[in-house]
Amino acid sequence: MQYPAPIAKLIHSFTKLPGIGSKTAARLAFYILEMNEADVLEFAQNLINARRDLTHCQICGNITDTDPCLICSDTSRDRTTILVVEDSRDVMSMERMQEYNGLYHVLGGVLSPMEGTGPEDLNITQLIQRLEDETVQEVILATNATSEGEATAMYLSRLIKPAGIKVTRLAHGLSVGSDIEYADEMTLYRAIEGRREL
Amino acid sequence: MQYPAPIAKLIHSFTKLPGIGSKTAARLAFYILEMNEADVLEFAQNLINARRDLTHCQICGNITDTDPCLICSDTSRDRTTILVVEDSRDVMSMERMQEYNGLYHVLGGVLSPMEGTGPEDLNITQLIQRLEDETVQEVILATNATSEGEATAMYLSRLIKPAGIKVTRLAHGLSVGSDIEYADEMTLYRAIEGRREL
Repeated sequence: MQYPAPIAKLIHSFTKLPGIGSKTAARLAFYILEMNEADVLEFAQNLINARRDLTHCQICGNITDTDPCLICSDTSRDRTTILVVEDSRDVMSMERMQEYNGLYHVLGGVLSPMEGTGPEDLNITQLIQRLEDETVQEVILATNATSEGEATAMYLSRLIKPAGIKVTRLAHGLSVGSDIEYADEMTLYRAIEGRREL
Repeated sequence: MQYPAPIAKLIHSFTKLPGIGSKTAARLAFYILEMNEADVLEFAQNLINARRDLTHCQICGNITDTDPCLICSDTSRDRTTILVVEDSRDVMSMERMQEYNGLYHVLGGVLSPMEGTGPEDLNITQLIQRLEDETVQEVILATNATSEGEATAMYLSRLIKPAGIKVTRLAHGLSVGSDIEYADEMTLYRAIEGRREL
């Protein structure tokens, strides 16, 4: 005996999401059956709305429901600095810090020869165009501290530096609140390398 | 800055699902934005259909899109045995085994004083009614091997036995393929207690 068709289809839809295997998908699908019908309708509507109403900002590539996005069109922000991140979630993380007041640029990924992602697959042409007008004085490369993130930062740095713009990279070192005992070698090495005088 | 409204709403919907916190919800919601639009529409439709078209079988309480369900209406199945489980997923697990040919009864939960679930919240009245017609000769209690599952099995056993029906419980012991070294004390105790002569 198989699952009844409607639940089998729902389980199949859930398994298409990242990190959700068939057991979790079944658990979620059965949970949906017991949910308030209004909540389920709202969930379905939210799925459709999010997919349909959100686009990428034409300027920075961030996810937005207005174009240009709220950050790009906010005149109170510092237009001399662009912080380059891998994806829109990174923008949200930076904004949560409430310390950075410049602009962003979302690459939409990282260079990854393994996955066949080259420079042409990322939002790089648009970044270079933004640098042509002479307002921007600094580009902060905030790709992840992974090997792909590092490689992408190196690539962008070589591309941007010749234009005479200051290019910086986020500091690497110990996480705040972490124990040296549990830090990996690379992190420790970066922490020593980047040590600062007190 | 907050997430744009459509994505914030979608994240909120995802967090209502069990085991999905705000970080996972954000990851899933952003994944939806990059998905094929047809797949998203299908996902939304599957949510609605599953919630709307599936009901509980009037006889056994299993999730079904036909009433009575396919198992209850299958005349080739052995009507003398009813296997009692906590929920519909357990029925699917049993069916996957392809060894059991009797009927099922889905309780829709277990007795849990902690969560305020009493006998009246479970599908027990219907089970007793099914036992009144004299076809049923054995009731197999297949609630989980948790303390609530055990308590529910004891409760049902006391309720059913006086009617002269054979009541059995699934065997407890070592999982097939497991190491004694890693088995907990209760499992080992049950494995010794339930030992069989070779």
